[in-house]
Amino acid sequence: MTFPLNTWYVACTPDEIQAGPLGRQVCGERMVFYRGPEQQVVALEDFCPHRGAPLSLGRVCEGKLVCGYHGLEMGCEGKTVAMPGQRVRGFPAVRAFPAVERHGFIWVWPGDPAQANADLIPALHWAQNDEWAYGGGLYHIACDYRLMVDNLMDLTHETYVHSTSIGQPEIDETPCQTRVEGDEVITSRFMNGIKPPPFWQMALRMNGLPDDQLVDRWQICHFTPPSHVLIEVGVALAGHGGYDAPDSVKASSIVVDFITPETATSIHYFWGMARRFKPQDPALTDQIRQGQGNIFAEDQEMLERQQQNLLRWPDRQLLMLNIDAGGVQARRVIDRLIAAERTAPAAATV
Amino acid sequence: MTFPLNTWYVACTPDEIQAGPLGRQVCGERMVFYRGPEQQVVALEDFCPHRGAPLSLGRVCEGKLVCGYHGLEMGCEGKTVAMPGQRVRGFPAVRAFPAVERHGFIWVWPGDPAQANADLIPALHWAQNDEWAYGGGLYHIACDYRLMVDNLMDLTHETYVHSTSIGQPEIDETPCQTRVEGDEVITSRFMNGIKPPPFWQMALRMNGLPDDQLVDRWQICHFTPPSHVLIEVGVALAGHGGYDAPDSVKASSIVVDFITPETATSIHYFWGMARRFKPQDPALTDQIRQGQGNIFAEDQEMLERQQQNLLRWPDRQLLMLNIDAGGVQARRVIDRLIAAERTAPAAATV
Amino acid sequence: MTFPLNTWYVACTPDEIQAGPLGRQVCGERMVFYRGPEQQVVALEDFCPHRGAPLSLGRVCEGKLVCGYHGLEMGCEGKTVAMPGQRVRGFPAVRAFPAVERHGFIWVWPGDPAQANADLIPALHWAQNDEWAYGGGLYHIACDYRLMVDNLMDLTHETYVHSTSIGQPEIDETPCQTRVEGDEVITSRFMNGIKPPPFWQMALRMNGLPDDQLVDRWQICHFTPPSHVLIEVGVALAGHGGYDAPDSVKASSIVVDFITPETATSIHYFWGMARRFKPQDPALTDQIRQGQGNIFAEDQEMLERQQQNLLRWPDRQLLMLNIDAGGVQARRVIDRLIAAERTAPAAATV
Repeated sequence: MTFPLNTWYVACTPDEIQAGPLGRQVCGERMVFYRGPEQQVVALEDFCPHRGAPLSLGRVCEGKLVCGYHGLEMGCEGKTVAMPGQRVRGFPAVRAFPAVERHGFIWVWPGDPAQANADLIPALHWAQNDEWAYGGGLYHIACDYRLMVDNLMDLTHETYVHSTSIGQPEIDETPCQTRVEGDEVITSRFMNGIKPPPFWQMALRMNGLPDDQLVDRWQICHFTPPSHVLIEVGVALAGHGGYDAPDSVKASSIVVDFITPETATSIHYFWGMARRFKPQDPALTDQIRQGQGNIFAEDQEMLERQQQNLLRWPDRQLLMLNIDAGGVQARRVIDRLIAAERTAPAAATV
Repeated sequence: MTFPLNTWYVACTPDEIQAGPLGRQVCGERMVFYRGPEQQVVALEDFCPHRGAPLSLGRVCEGKLVCGYHGLEMGCEGKTVAMPGQRVRGFPAVRAFPAVERHGFIWVWPGDPAQANADLIPALHWAQNDEWAYGGGLYHIACDYRLMVDNLMDLTHETYVHSTSIGQPEIDETPCQTRVEGDEVITSRFMNGIKPPPFWQMALRMNGLPDDQLVDRWQICHFTPPSHVLIEVGVALAGHGGYDAPDSVKASSIVVDFITPETATSIHYFWGMARRFKPQDPALTDQIRQGQGNIFAEDQEMLERQQQNLLRWPDRQLLMLNIDAGGVQARRVIDRLIAAERTAPAAATV
Repeated sequence: MTFPLNTWYVACTPDEIQAGPLGRQVCGERMVFYRGPEQQVVALEDFCPHRGAPLSLGRVCEGKLVCGYHGLEMGCEGKTVAMPGQRVRGFPAVRAFPAVERHGFIWVWPGDPAQANADLIPALHWAQNDEWAYGGGLYHIACDYRLMVDNLMDLTHETYVHSTSIGQPEIDETPCQTRVEGDEVITSRFMNGIKPPPFWQMALRMNGLPDDQLVDRWQICHFTPPSHVLIEVGVALAGHGGYDAPDSVKASSIVVDFITPETATSIHYFWGMARRFKPQDPALTDQIRQGQGNIFAEDQEMLERQQQNLLRWPDRQLLMLNIDAGGVQARRVIDRLIAAERTAPAAATV
């Protein structure tokens, strides 16, 4: 197992279960997500105990999940509650996974349900906050989730992969600092007195600021386990304090990345951006989402081809340079969590 | 081996070998089908003894199958009969499979040729009978052939999978009876005084009967090995005797299903409908074929996803409810035939 | 290993590396091809020692290959020469493969670099010679490279696979002669007083000769290891000496085939035609390339389906007829080379 199980992953968004049940594999488990009788989110094994059909091909009727093959009605605990013409008391149950809707996402705990604690879901101060706007999307990428963590914790790749949007040589030229605070890994880079790249020129204009002046730019990547990477990014007109400059001279936002393993070599990648400026402007949200979607699509081929190369040369050690410190430290946190699960009582994983 | 070999399967239709040889895998064997010198159907291994090219890429010339690579001429016994510039006497033979054209289909016996007996091909009273019309099609579905047998022997799925055409709640609500007569399994259901669903409303109109009155509806599924399911279906205006009502107040037909394993997890599914009304109306045949094709296409995703689930959870026992009795009994017949082949003399399988 | 490694294969054409680096797998090795600082061709493992990204996704900057992920700069010996903000002295090297540009192709030696000798690249008198014109293309085919050698050393297949262009019954009817001269295998066939097939009718017209007269036709296939097949082909008006007739009464050319194994069951197939008539007519070059491309595309399905059949029936012996002598002898040469590599000192393969 290359991922921890006793932790919360983003499984899907509310939009995705609006029209009916959603089948999605998370951490190797095939799950079905839907809303139960109190509109609460439910996650079950995507397997009908009658004949093994995927429950996600069915429909939700008054909060019960009705199998689309022969009409078995599944309850939100994973127990069959009814079936036409049948007594269902002895039917075997399917596994129910703890699931919680919070911050505009649906979170699932693929491990031991007894340990699931909704308080462990990260606090996201910008989520569903009127002063902030959020827009994002979902990509499926055929790579180990840790390659995406590496990608996001070492932004020097922007200079090469995203050279036409957010990349610029100064990212490469400016050293970064990495520190670990408990299970959090923070990599930060401050570039002062540089020209803003195209994406930030746009953001400056959207903030009513000039786009042709030198700026101080920052990138502060926060990894928290299992695989969340939130990146504080922004520019301020040069000489006003950079990250600490007053709002009137800066444009800033948070790049949001929730990386959910599907298998050992594929992920559901929930990406987005939270911004505090012009939060009531949905056209701007769409425009940023479009731009960000284009940028993150540039990573896809690189990550998938990197994954193929690593499978082809499994014995080669990769380098761990200073720029890789964020990813390296994040993997240490991940490894520690996995090791802790392995040594925990057998009951921990069903 | 999950299928019997010493039995007749439908391999293809005459149409499919009209323009030239047809390559098709049956029960794991790659075969080529074509017409020999007396127009008789021939089934051989699809392997040229010269360099291993598929013979099905060749053409038929005066009843000989000419390899499309270097012109080897194959005879209908699997022996090379000629090749330009060569003496072919010592060429190794390829396997010939017993093949028979009957009832508008081409049947193949993938097992021991010595045991092949054309009398074992099922009698189909409706086939090539002027009082009946037949129309059908062929689907390739990635599932174990027994999942399709299950599907056809438990029609409660119509309520869920085919809710817009032939499904209706009464199917679920009416118990079925299953009985076994030798190797035949029969599951029947009689629903009296119900509203006809859309497909049967159409059939009533085609028979010059009102489509807005209550009817008695029946479904009588006949499984015979290895994997043929013929279903007597129909409706009669309510109160005239149902299945036994006179022709003047009913619409009825036979749903025809020949399921031929390609591999352990894929099938060639020959489906169709034989009807005794308006047999000389080819437009009606086409209309029914179109409707039936749409209905059977609805099963495909369910069956393929069910198969994937069963491969993913190989150790889970499925339930065997009363509605599943037809499929369960059919599997017992199949298992008995497979066991008999295993204990037969080794010569039985080449 | 089913192919020799200490030999030269055609890897790509200069066109393919004009716009940037090219990733291509040769003999199971993932390689990147590009031009170094002196415009010389370079072949390296397609693996960045930093994080394993394919170097072929990068770009060439002043003869250095810059990784497209984080900017590592790779030198043409496989050693990292620079990386922004890093000391690279201790970085592990990647493998460099000897590569040479010659005769309009880029050749690579996938085996022991110490044994690579550019003098072993075949002399091609027609290449880059003003009296000759060359046009060709590249196909990817999913078959063992030896099946393509067989194909080209036994042209009786033209009668069947290419019946509408270059095939004609006389090929089948005329015996061929095969001889071995060292590592070269030569199969020749001379057909006198026959009607020219469509392709050669066109060539006769292009030479200002009548296309409706009998001709003497020849095919002389030259195999040289590892997998080059050059075929002298042509027609002369009948009775003027055939192959030895004066240029004024004949049309002739050389069919060029360089077959490069990608894996054990797939190839990069570089095909083309060199002609000595109207060499300065690029429209004619295009026309011939188009026609030849259509002809060679006819082989693709046959070879791929033959390969699938051989994988399905791995234990069947193929026949070795007189027409197969060219392929059989070529395989003996290949086997001898592979055996020699196996018994060579271990240093021979890295």
